[in-house]
Amino acid sequence: MSIVIEAVYHRPKLNWSYAYDEKTVHVRIRTKRNDVNQVFVHAGDKYAWERTASYVKMRLLTNDASFDYWEAAIQPPYRRLRYGFRLESGKERLWLTEQGFQRKEPIDSAGMFEYPFLNPADILKPPSWVKDAVFYQIFPERFANGDSAINPPQVESWGAQPTATNFFGGDLLGVMQHLNHLVELGVTAIYFTPLFEATTNHKYDTRDYLKVDPQFGTNETLKQLVEACHQRGIRVLLDAVFNHCGKTFLPFIDVMEKGADSPYADWFHIKEWPLRVKDGIPTYETFAFEPIMPKLNTENEEVKAYLLEVAEFWIREIGIDGWRLDVANEVDHRFWRSFRDKVKRMNPDAYILGEIWHDAMMWLQGDQFDAVMNYPFTTAVLDFVTTGKLDGAGFADAVGAQLASYPQQANEAAFNLLDSHDTPRLLTQCDGDKRRMKLAALLQFTFPGTPCIYYGDEVGMSGGGDPDCRRCMVWDASLQDRDLFEFYRRLIALRKSSEALRTGALRFLHAKPGDARLVFERVNENEQLLIFVNASRRSAQLSVNAGAARSWQSAPPGAAVPAMAPAGGKLQLKLPPFGYAVLRAE
Amino acid sequence: MSIVIEAVYHRPKLNWSYAYDEKTVHVRIRTKRNDVNQVFVHAGDKYAWERTASYVKMRLLTNDASFDYWEAAIQPPYRRLRYGFRLESGKERLWLTEQGFQRKEPIDSAGMFEYPFLNPADILKPPSWVKDAVFYQIFPERFANGDSAINPPQVESWGAQPTATNFFGGDLLGVMQHLNHLVELGVTAIYFTPLFEATTNHKYDTRDYLKVDPQFGTNETLKQLVEACHQRGIRVLLDAVFNHCGKTFLPFIDVMEKGADSPYADWFHIKEWPLRVKDGIPTYETFAFEPIMPKLNTENEEVKAYLLEVAEFWIREIGIDGWRLDVANEVDHRFWRSFRDKVKRMNPDAYILGEIWHDAMMWLQGDQFDAVMNYPFTTAVLDFVTTGKLDGAGFADAVGAQLASYPQQANEAAFNLLDSHDTPRLLTQCDGDKRRMKLAALLQFTFPGTPCIYYGDEVGMSGGGDPDCRRCMVWDASLQDRDLFEFYRRLIALRKSSEALRTGALRFLHAKPGDARLVFERVNENEQLLIFVNASRRSAQLSVNAGAARSWQSAPPGAAVPAMAPAGGKLQLKLPPFGYAVLRAE
Repeated sequence: MSIVIEAVYHRPKLNWSYAYDEKTVHVRIRTKRNDVNQVFVHAGDKYAWERTASYVKMRLLTNDASFDYWEAAIQPPYRRLRYGFRLESGKERLWLTEQGFQRKEPIDSAGMFEYPFLNPADILKPPSWVKDAVFYQIFPERFANGDSAINPPQVESWGAQPTATNFFGGDLLGVMQHLNHLVELGVTAIYFTPLFEATTNHKYDTRDYLKVDPQFGTNETLKQLVEACHQRGIRVLLDAVFNHCGKTFLPFIDVMEKGADSPYADWFHIKEWPLRVKDGIPTYETFAFEPIMPKLNTENEEVKAYLLEVAEFWIREIGIDGWRLDVANEVDHRFWRSFRDKVKRMNPDAYILGEIWHDAMMWLQGDQFDAVMNYPFTTAVLDFVTTGKLDGAGFADAVGAQLASYPQQANEAAFNLLDSHDTPRLLTQCDGDKRRMKLAALLQFTFPGTPCIYYGDEVGMSGGGDPDCRRCMVWDASLQDRDLFEFYRRLIALRKSSEALRTGALRFLHAKPGDARLVFERVNENEQLLIFVNASRRSAQLSVNAGAARSWQSAPPGAAVPAMAPAGGKLQLKLPPFGYAVLRAE
Repeated sequence: MSIVIEAVYHRPKLNWSYAYDEKTVHVRIRTKRNDVNQVFVHAGDKYAWERTASYVKMRLLTNDASFDYWEAAIQPPYRRLRYGFRLESGKERLWLTEQGFQRKEPIDSAGMFEYPFLNPADILKPPSWVKDAVFYQIFPERFANGDSAINPPQVESWGAQPTATNFFGGDLLGVMQHLNHLVELGVTAIYFTPLFEATTNHKYDTRDYLKVDPQFGTNETLKQLVEACHQRGIRVLLDAVFNHCGKTFLPFIDVMEKGADSPYADWFHIKEWPLRVKDGIPTYETFAFEPIMPKLNTENEEVKAYLLEVAEFWIREIGIDGWRLDVANEVDHRFWRSFRDKVKRMNPDAYILGEIWHDAMMWLQGDQFDAVMNYPFTTAVLDFVTTGKLDGAGFADAVGAQLASYPQQANEAAFNLLDSHDTPRLLTQCDGDKRRMKLAALLQFTFPGTPCIYYGDEVGMSGGGDPDCRRCMVWDASLQDRDLFEFYRRLIALRKSSEALRTGALRFLHAKPGDARLVFERVNENEQLLIFVNASRRSAQLSVNAGAARSWQSAPPGAAVPAMAPAGGKLQLKLPPFGYAVLRAE
């Protein structure tokens, strides 16, 4: 058996060779799973190859069902990197350069791969606070009604059943009044779905991008809220709905009225005059086929200038800490590049988070977003913990593929959510089984990527798909699940206490087909944590090689499972159905 | 035997799914060579899947040693594309989506790949004239001395042996006086290596980016020359040396004098004061380790503004038609994006051509370059025609891999050169064998990509590596090879007469291991051409399936080989050693 060359993949840049920081380039290569024993990267300076070239051993970064992914970190002395690979399988040696495979060491370095120059301007560099953050998502119409004077007409009583169109009067003052809840929980950042003036309860149909919706408060209220958050160490992320506006956006109204004569005609994508809906399809482009959400022409210089001013306005005037970008992948890349330049110039620490449900590598090249909403992670966790579609091996494969597909810093800043205003609630997806919900949350908080809690999950709220997932927050303590709250509080504290959980390497120690048990390690130079998960209905015994550590301590919120002393290097643990444990090496 | 899934590759965007024009998305997928019979792409609109989805048969675009590459062109009705693939091998059916492989047709389209939206702003769109152009590269110090009054001191007599440092007095007036030569030959564009003031004979060490070197003339001379070229239908490309300047560049002199106190200190990358060369390595970053070429800090806003003004100046004031970018891959991407914006705003038809010797996909995403210098093509042609390192199959594999690695429009606008001021001359690489040289040129002019002739090749000039390849142009007609000139003239005329040669599909009809014969087809809706090549020392018989065409005519500069009538669908041809033929279907 010789090395399967068709499985080997490397192409410079993207997730395959990228600058991690101003000195370090990460180089990766893919091989068929379990096909090679070891890979080395042969790297040096293009113009001083003889003097600088050396072989660097690559570590097995991760794997998926079909492939192993290898990685090495290299610090090129003159910021230029030329490199090839040596793959080893048994006695077989195979070299890969840009010229292809060969059985002998290449004699001429000119045909090798290149990471031509490490230019700081091109590095994907999410704000450093993001990887340490714990987010909390608020759907403002449903979080808390702090000021009944600005209630929308005909509000329902708090806690009634939400429909697609009804209102409950949640507002910014309500958030302000409940900041202590967030502080107690330990969250350090809020993501608000849209706050700007609009007609619907979800506000994704913007009327005025420069004004807080009067049903939520005023710009001044938001400014006070952001200040109050900042005083409590909580950052604030707003929702930028720039793909489309609402039908009450003044420029769109003007176009509706004046047709092709409107000075705003080119602000939209008009396919046919007059504007109308024909056989269910608007004659102007929209989000999906939604007539109340006309797509904005972000290639028009006026539109671009307007939206970029919006992006800057809320940072400059209100002090927000970043933007979540709605329907981000349908807007042109060129717009997002200008957006990034504008936002980062105003606040280099602003977080730019794209809503992309699919592979988002093309937006993570350092020129557009810092990270994306990590739906592939969501799916993997739910498929493992709730539906059982994935076994331990399947879960490890899914997240392994995901981790391999982005640069490390994009993974560290990924927005790991398990539910949102667009999905059924986590508890409901777990069929109301709190044990499963806790397992899912445990995975969320022990993984690379910044976790986000959807408001109310922490007190046991349930709800099906939109609009049911948008129920009013439960504030009556007697109706809150305080055990769950305590669990989340401890989870958050655990994550905050452990740098390894946030940025350490991830390695699966137990992940097998047909087996719902899972053990993985998060490790850095100073810490080693083992996370044990039993996603089955039966109690389970787990035994893993514990490595060098002499003793282990159960870390909060680890269940009260005493760790057994390592016997012969093996650490044994018994977990109840849907049980878990987090052990920290002493 | 089932389909080798490890060999299958697709990832949205780049060369795998890209907008070819404002309506069309090209989708490609890779499979193991000769592993599948057919691939279909299953494509539709994300928000109207049921109504719009259909299976589109993919054509075999090309192949290399390991893989087949398939392509389909799709016009998404609402500019959004969701898609998966169906691979067929014998009775086997395999579906691929973003979720991986499955044996049954996916029931939920949500897990498919996405090309989320066809935004015109993001399309890679080289100027339309480029694919039709024929370039001619001029090294100005050696082309023609038209004004001895501006000779450098101590010029050598015209035609003496060039050294790294001597001068011959070539200038812009000389070019002006010989434009008829270019017109007669048929070229439609000139690429000048640097013209700006500098100390060396190659002028890659710029002193003043806004001034034509006095040894070549004045800015006014250049303006007149560009106008004269334009009157003759010839476009002009200049060399932008923005990675580094020369040591006589005034800001660098200021830093040399004032050290860290210079206002220009941040214009460069100073590693250690004072500036000097320590053990062969400058204490400031340079091109390679060349002390006279300090690297410019293109992340510094002043440097950026200065160089962008330079880029604009020569378009605005002198009317040049584009820029060739020296050492393009060592400058930051962010700089090139601004460069593109600036240049295209001034002249949307300007050609932006990067000097990148390696895989350049990351610069061809629509935001940076129009195309790159096609060195992989150079290598493949020379290895096939001169060294024999590649047989017919190897050549087809090499160019197949190359064509698959970029979007079609980047291939059409690729700068296909066979030699330059940086390499030995073509005739010298052919060991003086004109037959081989003609074969190489024939391949160059019948391939996708804009061909470039290095000055003097067309009259039989030879020369080894730099500086020998920079000999003075031979103007004495009795010393010129007029047969070669006539050959090039006819080659150019052939290319101009055939749209299929410029943008038609390419298909190899004969390309086998251990066989130096090659037949390929260039075809579009209106034309079909067959190119026969015999790269061996022996005469060769070639027989190919001629398709539907009834009769064939030898197209210039086809050798006088009468095409035999197709017999039983087969077209037979006999070629002398290093012979060739171009046949056009009637």
